[in-house]
Amino acid sequence: MEMWIKEMQIEGAAMTYKVNETLLRKKTEFQDLAIVDTPSFGRMLVLDGIVQTTIKDEFIYHEMITHIPLFTHPNPKKVLVVGGGDGGAIREILKHPSVEKAVLCEIDGDVIEACKKYLPEISCALDDKRCEVFVGDGIKYVKDHKNEFDVIIVDSTDPFNMAEGLFGGNFYRDIFDALTEEGIFIAQTETPYFLPDTVNKVFNDAKKIFPVTKMFMAGIPTYPGGYWSFTVGSKKHDPSKVDTSKIKIQDMKYYTPELHNACFVLPQYVKDVIGEK
Amino acid sequence: MEMWIKEMQIEGAAMTYKVNETLLRKKTEFQDLAIVDTPSFGRMLVLDGIVQTTIKDEFIYHEMITHIPLFTHPNPKKVLVVGGGDGGAIREILKHPSVEKAVLCEIDGDVIEACKKYLPEISCALDDKRCEVFVGDGIKYVKDHKNEFDVIIVDSTDPFNMAEGLFGGNFYRDIFDALTEEGIFIAQTETPYFLPDTVNKVFNDAKKIFPVTKMFMAGIPTYPGGYWSFTVGSKKHDPSKVDTSKIKIQDMKYYTPELHNACFVLPQYVKDVIGEK
Amino acid sequence: MEMWIKEMQIEGAAMTYKVNETLLRKKTEFQDLAIVDTPSFGRMLVLDGIVQTTIKDEFIYHEMITHIPLFTHPNPKKVLVVGGGDGGAIREILKHPSVEKAVLCEIDGDVIEACKKYLPEISCALDDKRCEVFVGDGIKYVKDHKNEFDVIIVDSTDPFNMAEGLFGGNFYRDIFDALTEEGIFIAQTETPYFLPDTVNKVFNDAKKIFPVTKMFMAGIPTYPGGYWSFTVGSKKHDPSKVDTSKIKIQDMKYYTPELHNACFVLPQYVKDVIGEK
Amino acid sequence: MEMWIKEMQIEGAAMTYKVNETLLRKKTEFQDLAIVDTPSFGRMLVLDGIVQTTIKDEFIYHEMITHIPLFTHPNPKKVLVVGGGDGGAIREILKHPSVEKAVLCEIDGDVIEACKKYLPEISCALDDKRCEVFVGDGIKYVKDHKNEFDVIIVDSTDPFNMAEGLFGGNFYRDIFDALTEEGIFIAQTETPYFLPDTVNKVFNDAKKIFPVTKMFMAGIPTYPGGYWSFTVGSKKHDPSKVDTSKIKIQDMKYYTPELHNACFVLPQYVKDVIGEK
Repeated sequence: MEMWIKEMQIEGAAMTYKVNETLLRKKTEFQDLAIVDTPSFGRMLVLDGIVQTTIKDEFIYHEMITHIPLFTHPNPKKVLVVGGGDGGAIREILKHPSVEKAVLCEIDGDVIEACKKYLPEISCALDDKRCEVFVGDGIKYVKDHKNEFDVIIVDSTDPFNMAEGLFGGNFYRDIFDALTEEGIFIAQTETPYFLPDTVNKVFNDAKKIFPVTKMFMAGIPTYPGGYWSFTVGSKKHDPSKVDTSKIKIQDMKYYTPELHNACFVLPQYVKDVIGEK
Repeated sequence: MEMWIKEMQIEGAAMTYKVNETLLRKKTEFQDLAIVDTPSFGRMLVLDGIVQTTIKDEFIYHEMITHIPLFTHPNPKKVLVVGGGDGGAIREILKHPSVEKAVLCEIDGDVIEACKKYLPEISCALDDKRCEVFVGDGIKYVKDHKNEFDVIIVDSTDPFNMAEGLFGGNFYRDIFDALTEEGIFIAQTETPYFLPDTVNKVFNDAKKIFPVTKMFMAGIPTYPGGYWSFTVGSKKHDPSKVDTSKIKIQDMKYYTPELHNACFVLPQYVKDVIGEK
Repeated sequence: MEMWIKEMQIEGAAMTYKVNETLLRKKTEFQDLAIVDTPSFGRMLVLDGIVQTTIKDEFIYHEMITHIPLFTHPNPKKVLVVGGGDGGAIREILKHPSVEKAVLCEIDGDVIEACKKYLPEISCALDDKRCEVFVGDGIKYVKDHKNEFDVIIVDSTDPFNMAEGLFGGNFYRDIFDALTEEGIFIAQTETPYFLPDTVNKVFNDAKKIFPVTKMFMAGIPTYPGGYWSFTVGSKKHDPSKVDTSKIKIQDMKYYTPELHNACFVLPQYVKDVIGEK
Repeated sequence: MEMWIKEMQIEGAAMTYKVNETLLRKKTEFQDLAIVDTPSFGRMLVLDGIVQTTIKDEFIYHEMITHIPLFTHPNPKKVLVVGGGDGGAIREILKHPSVEKAVLCEIDGDVIEACKKYLPEISCALDDKRCEVFVGDGIKYVKDHKNEFDVIIVDSTDPFNMAEGLFGGNFYRDIFDALTEEGIFIAQTETPYFLPDTVNKVFNDAKKIFPVTKMFMAGIPTYPGGYWSFTVGSKKHDPSKVDTSKIKIQDMKYYTPELHNACFVLPQYVKDVIGEK
């Protein structure tokens, strides 16, 4: 029996994956949660029908959303991840010896439990003593914490429905306030190819608030278009002009010090999308 | 009536596209040729079931496979494209004022005719007086021309069946001989994510022959994995260390002078695939 | 390149067909019209995404919707087909030597033209001198003709959108009036398995008007559920109790005299659907 | 997340079903076993990718494969089912008060366990004290029992791979010997529309051995073509000429006494397939 799932990427184009086994399927308080095992990408976390992360290609997303801001900040001690219930960002954050505390604020506790059970390769660091897991609303959490985090990572689902409030001006203002003096914010900001309007808005919302706002790209096979944007908002340090000569990496499969600055060099159409010259 | 085509990317993962209309379907002497119109990517050229180029995202591939070698060479006058019957590479090559002659050597004349008729946005320069179209075997053509071309571009289908001879040592040796003293070779070299063994072999075959061999990546939505590799073999000039200060571009939507060198900075896993440090 | 069409049969179940070639695709004044060639059923007429008839299995539908009423009527001379633009019913009707005139009243002239060109095996009798083709509204046509036809065949698309008026009480009243004294009406009346409410309503609407109303079934591979109902309304003769001893058939592949009465013996669930004992 | 399974019915035509949940998936000693829950047909038993039985339409197959032979035999006391691990045939057999013993001989014990757990509506009678379940090879079982069963029902998967030995002359000879004097054999014998050669061979193999051999049809939505054949081989009684006046039925949704003889009246093409006049 062949079983397939399909993820619509844009009107008239979809990715479809064969599924060996459905390990978990649950309607949580917030979303349709599934863990499936696939021949192409291994186990996958699928939320509301959208592939979030897979055993085989998760390293790309998780390395880039963490090491870019953490190697930009001179001495990151306290880091907040909003969303990211799979734990992949936490795992990468804790590779930085300077980090004393990494808080995960995920609204859906079922996602955390599912990933702990079925995706241990990704969630393995959630039990680290430097990690604090908080199940609750990220928007409120950020509002309630001022001048506290050196890095804030918004590792959310797409900017529709539930996650809509995690994209845009008001939330970014609160993030700014929750960051320390040299603080750095990063968010996954979708595909400039398929969603130019969304990417334009999100980038420029951030730009209105942060002194330095930059976008970089990474090639992620399971995300629509295969080429994904991330936006960095920084109070002081330019993430695209980091002195990478002293960066020491361990166990990384995508991020390299050379790539740190190079990934910010954008194709012309992406510059056009966000209105950069 | 909804009509869809499906392209298997790897065992258990496929892209599927809704088709508005099949403009042409023909068994040519060499392959199953189709031009379909889709809501997601506009008109598409599909050969043996594999999407080759689309109206909406062709600019990425065609700009990167041409401008990287042509802006690396100090004064490209004569350029050869092996394959590339859609004419997109020719269109980009002829944006370079130094070019006096661009030869297209495509084995399947039906591809050229189909693209002239149905994809004029891509094939428009095939009638330029500086362009010479030769319908025939690229392997033989290259073998028969010595010390003649400043740039040779291998714009082929995947390295299976018909196109297999366009990937690998013997052909690259003949390309080396067909190039002039400062000559540069480039080929599309597939997806390092899905086909690491193929990419490794092709890159290292080129590396054995060319003094300088470098790989770069570009994000292409309709190619498997969305993140595609190109290999440049050069007799003299390093394509990743070009002085881009004097590059003048026109009408480009992906290539930028800043990206010229930056795109050669590879993710760690791609370096691992090709055995680079 | 593999191209497939999909016909949703019921929520969560669909038939999907590989398409070799799209011979015609047109938005007519009334519907989305397509003629496709398939490996499984040969050429197909597809209207608004629903398979209407195919070269390979059309004989079942066309034989049963015509020969049951025509062999029930003692001497059918004038026959009306409402819908049926493919011409298959006309072809079968004209196998009856008693028939002097067969009128086709089809609202969509493009369907007739398409079938004449691409489905000659089905449409071949539309040029017969005993056949009169009228392009126009069947509801109005029936209303305008009184006491004229010995048999009226409603060979329509599904009872949604455009064809809705062809199912139900008011139309059946007009059909009754358009029939001669021993007149017989037949309509394709959908799948009792998937659409029990529709089938119940249509059958009982007919039953209120005709002295004798009976349902029979036929196995049709390309129709949802594979087992299709037809309703016969008759002024005098019981179509399920025909003396078949003198029936002479020619070139029939589904209908047999023995099957004529037997096909009216319904499974229990179909009897339940229409409220028969 | 939408998950679908697809069953290829013939080259280029497939049924596809949305799956709510996979209740069980197991590689047994003999086959790929799955129980899935679907919105269209409820829970389904799927073996090697082929839908075997569903909660919603199983009544058709199970009633017709049992009541036709059991109401043909004047006094069936001992009945054997070869295959039929879902228990549906047993459930129907035990509606006949004359039956003293019903033996189920199923080769794959995992099928029985799965259906007991997940399809209790179908398997409910397997625990009846008149039912004896034997897990083992049906071919050997039949060979080892002579002159013992009044009715033998072959309720198998398709005649490929594992089940091939359950279709054809040698097995039918042993069945003949295992039957009592007035014994009756029945088998599901596939789709005459899609598999004419198979149906012809199986029917005529039976015909060489049994004095009376007849085929009947039933409309089954989840089987390819929707219109399925069954072959009855009988030592004495003609199953198509049963005096049905005294038949008392209970809880039946497809079988009726009137349908008993009528279902043997075949469409012309089916008669042609099996070489009957």
